[in-house]
Amino acid sequence: MSDLELTQIGVIYTPFKERKGTPIQPKMGKGIEGRIEVFDKYVPGLKDLDGFSHIILLYYFHLSEGYSLEVIPYLDDKHRGLFSTRAPKRPSQIGLSVVRLKEINGDTLTIENVDMLDQTPLLDIKPYVPNFDEPQDIRIGWLKERLKGMHHKKADDRF
Amino acid sequence: MSDLELTQIGVIYTPFKERKGTPIQPKMGKGIEGRIEVFDKYVPGLKDLDGFSHIILLYYFHLSEGYSLEVIPYLDDKHRGLFSTRAPKRPSQIGLSVVRLKEINGDTLTIENVDMLDQTPLLDIKPYVPNFDEPQDIRIGWLKERLKGMHHKKADDRF
Repeated sequence: MSDLELTQIGVIYTPFKERKGTPIQPKMGKGIEGRIEVFDKYVPGLKDLDGFSHIILLYYFHLSEGYSLEVIPYLDDKHRGLFSTRAPKRPSQIGLSVVRLKEINGDTLTIENVDMLDQTPLLDIKPYVPNFDEPQDIRIGWLKERLKGMHHKKADDRF
Repeated sequence: MSDLELTQIGVIYTPFKERKGTPIQPKMGKGIEGRIEVFDKYVPGLKDLDGFSHIILLYYFHLSEGYSLEVIPYLDDKHRGLFSTRAPKRPSQIGLSVVRLKEINGDTLTIENVDMLDQTPLLDIKPYVPNFDEPQDIRIGWLKERLKGMHHKKADDRF
């Protein structure tokens, strides 16, 4: 399809200038603060968002190019199917992170638990709602044995 | 930015031909089965995914056109800022649903708890990992008082 369009609504600023050393998930970026600047024309859409403690950010992996359908993820040493991983190099380079929303001030959101690179293009903000987003009776496949020690894990330059 | 590109990796088939009457979230579509057909070239990326009970689907709201920065959401009777809602008409028309993965057979995934329209273009599949995706100490703003009775709620034709 040629008519799929993306619209950037703002920019995410974080302390991370390169993939290497960046937290691989928001939990590993716990307490690390970032900032979102929403473009002026979209600011009215932020109304009521301050009631939510957590937001889902959809963003564009702007520094990732190309992808492989099998990758060795940060948390494993085996090749895994790309869609069973959260690796940033994907056919549609869309990242998803649930972050804590600390404050909204005009066009600027202060957020916490960031795991994306500085100057990441923001595509969408959705409120995080456990009742919508948290299923029950979950199995997590290859990751089950790999989550131990993940809190010390940082990205390297593989992606 | 003009260089943001989306790639469709497959098609989601569901029983819902129009927005009206479609479940407004996967929880309201509980038990309703759908099917994903992944395009041939992406099938190797499905390896290892069958270990996961739930997957995050990113897809394109292909029947939504345009958007307003304030909307009356399905679960409320007041205008709310668009980014504090999950309304489908958004600047980047990307939908997100966590669904149950029942089976993978070649290029076909059988899924459950669907809330998207039939023939929705699929952009990405990510494994659902509570440790990554479920934050703590959550507040849900205007939705708090609105979740009661939501299980009977269906979409109408407003979006």
